[in-house]
Amino acid sequence: MTAPTPISELASRTGSPVVVKGWVRRIRSSGRIAFLVVRDGTGEVQCVFSRADLDDATWQTLTAAEHESTVAVTGEVCADKRSPIGVEVSANSLRVLSGSPEFPIQPKEHGIDFLLEHRHLWLRSPRQVALMRIRDETMRAIRDFLHEDGFTCVDTPILTGAIGESAGTLFETEYFDLGTAYLAQTGQLYVETAAAALGKVYCFGPTFRAEKSKTRRHLTEFWMVEPEVAWMDSDGNMDLQERMVCYVAARVLDRCQADLGTMGRDLDRLAAIVPPFNRMSYTDAVARLQEAGHEIEWGSDLGAGHEAALTEGRSKPLFVHDYPKRAKAFYMKENPDNPATVKCNDLLAPEGYGEIIGGSQREDDYDRLLARIREEGLPEESYGWYLDLRKYGTFPHSGFGLGLERTVAWLSGAQHLRETIAYPRMMTRITP
Amino acid sequence: MTAPTPISELASRTGSPVVVKGWVRRIRSSGRIAFLVVRDGTGEVQCVFSRADLDDATWQTLTAAEHESTVAVTGEVCADKRSPIGVEVSANSLRVLSGSPEFPIQPKEHGIDFLLEHRHLWLRSPRQVALMRIRDETMRAIRDFLHEDGFTCVDTPILTGAIGESAGTLFETEYFDLGTAYLAQTGQLYVETAAAALGKVYCFGPTFRAEKSKTRRHLTEFWMVEPEVAWMDSDGNMDLQERMVCYVAARVLDRCQADLGTMGRDLDRLAAIVPPFNRMSYTDAVARLQEAGHEIEWGSDLGAGHEAALTEGRSKPLFVHDYPKRAKAFYMKENPDNPATVKCNDLLAPEGYGEIIGGSQREDDYDRLLARIREEGLPEESYGWYLDLRKYGTFPHSGFGLGLERTVAWLSGAQHLRETIAYPRMMTRITP
Repeated sequence: MTAPTPISELASRTGSPVVVKGWVRRIRSSGRIAFLVVRDGTGEVQCVFSRADLDDATWQTLTAAEHESTVAVTGEVCADKRSPIGVEVSANSLRVLSGSPEFPIQPKEHGIDFLLEHRHLWLRSPRQVALMRIRDETMRAIRDFLHEDGFTCVDTPILTGAIGESAGTLFETEYFDLGTAYLAQTGQLYVETAAAALGKVYCFGPTFRAEKSKTRRHLTEFWMVEPEVAWMDSDGNMDLQERMVCYVAARVLDRCQADLGTMGRDLDRLAAIVPPFNRMSYTDAVARLQEAGHEIEWGSDLGAGHEAALTEGRSKPLFVHDYPKRAKAFYMKENPDNPATVKCNDLLAPEGYGEIIGGSQREDDYDRLLARIREEGLPEESYGWYLDLRKYGTFPHSGFGLGLERTVAWLSGAQHLRETIAYPRMMTRITP
Repeated sequence: MTAPTPISELASRTGSPVVVKGWVRRIRSSGRIAFLVVRDGTGEVQCVFSRADLDDATWQTLTAAEHESTVAVTGEVCADKRSPIGVEVSANSLRVLSGSPEFPIQPKEHGIDFLLEHRHLWLRSPRQVALMRIRDETMRAIRDFLHEDGFTCVDTPILTGAIGESAGTLFETEYFDLGTAYLAQTGQLYVETAAAALGKVYCFGPTFRAEKSKTRRHLTEFWMVEPEVAWMDSDGNMDLQERMVCYVAARVLDRCQADLGTMGRDLDRLAAIVPPFNRMSYTDAVARLQEAGHEIEWGSDLGAGHEAALTEGRSKPLFVHDYPKRAKAFYMKENPDNPATVKCNDLLAPEGYGEIIGGSQREDDYDRLLARIREEGLPEESYGWYLDLRKYGTFPHSGFGLGLERTVAWLSGAQHLRETIAYPRMMTRITP
């Protein structure tokens, strides 16, 4: 099979004959000239046909070309200043490769259920393509930042006997003769063990929460990157998060201009994401919220409404640190200055996007960690290996988890996480 | 907390005072001088102490330092030609941060069950660290190759209503009120839909097979990269695989010399992995095997023994293409030249490593695909969305899946997949 010329390469082929293969975006005809816009995944191009050059049958085929049918266009690449890619194709022949009768997604408003039911076709829409490209660049930027900073990727298991943050929101599966396995909610506990081997490590993969939550900020399956660093404390952890988030925002701004344009994103919003980010203690945050009339008592976790209030009017993300111990996970290190709190932080994105990162210094004292496991009523026998890390050469270490889809939604300006992943999984959706 | 100097940075600090924090690899003392080898994940360094510089208590602490206990060493960086990193630390003080009483993994032979049970500690061994680094570089090389070639990463769901290659080897989980969900065996069917949106795409994540197989070449949870390309046929698919495998092998050879050394890998083996790879039809392969006395009939799939025989004496991977339709998956394109076969290939690694890639051109004809789904007795209603891809602008496309752990095992020379992933999952192991 002769490979067609990718549309992204046409600009460098001015004056050359080419064959373009792709899907019909739209067709417009004046009766003497027809404009066929074709997309192939690398871009889209306008192909111009003259009635005089074509026989009757081909002209009819052309003007009746169906939305999303596949075609092969032969022609010559011509410079064109009005084209977003600088060229168009002066076409001399057309072959329809496959029809697309009544393509379900039309250039009109569709309900979200209809779109999700047709996610396999909805993915072809310009906005969805832009989001997939922004997601890809976000992932690459995260990996490049971590690699340049000396991290090694150590992927952690999905199928696990130990449970992570909270039972009751776990997906379960039968595992041969070994009983029940759970789908990991986090790779953190495992990646901590790798930090003792490799110093700076991260995992980056899908995680699972069987939460009965229907908000626009929840998916049951989502991707999370979890860096973990030996000999780093909670302050260093926030420094690392700040550097990473700024690097990623700058990369997306730099490399995804066209896609951000498709999203209608205000680029100034991304340009504002530079160090330093403000750091506010949980205790101060609660005081501010109380002053502003919010009903919140010291000790309870912040809700989405509280997060939105704290970031209102800010152009950068905000760190909130040192939350109450009773509101947070068992593995967080007790704050020596105030044992009712732990050395942790959330990072709240502005514009109402809320928490995109949760991080903490980990409890590195064997006895304290064991006491916390018992306090929480967790199955002690499942955590023997995790406790071992505090038994054999324990070390201060910290890390965090950044939710990929929440970050992509924020950077791209998407309102709902369901558009930031190819096949979103929610409480009410497992197909297609 | 003052961050210690990473050991990897010591070579650039000759003559400077430093604090190194890490784990004790070993201690050796002559009575007047003591050599303490410390590792911190970025490398290891020898710290030299003189008896004359230390008080009695510190000397005792030093010479009794436990394997894998954590220490802070203060001293000055000195050039040293015998050191693999070019420097050692002339130490003047030592602080033991944490003991490590009777670290379970000693420098002696342990049984594999013992090691796997202590995988969280075994990871700290030099060979395991080397393997994790080679794995990381392999993943990075794959992603860089694909990105430079114009691919977009589109991750596919793990939780799915549709099944992939074969029922009966699926992990299942209850999904809210929506019935049973399955853990994906492949992202291919989904990534095909993304190829219609973005042209060249791939997914790269964990996949799951509940196979009751105990060989050294099987894991129940393993990572797979699955590129998929619009307008590419089976020959182009093999070209792409060849380019990618050669790129990855060259990168690992270039960037992981020390780690390959730790593995005892013969570097000439990797240097030999250059284009072109031989391409042999399944029909020719069976003829050769029959000539060599193997019991195999045309129509059955190749076993591990057949693969080993076909690659014996070869220094490069071998493509075997155009397998019988009845031995392969329903979605592979019928070969127009011989409808009893399909346009597919496996890529067999030399040295007995066997299949590392399976790929094919996909059936792009609606009626033929539907017939194959019916022939295989698959639940037609689950594949409506997949069939839609052949209904709305169908297009020739091909792709493949490369098993990460098999590739890492081959490149590194590891004999068993269980060492090539941080927490291997097998039929008999789900912990730690």
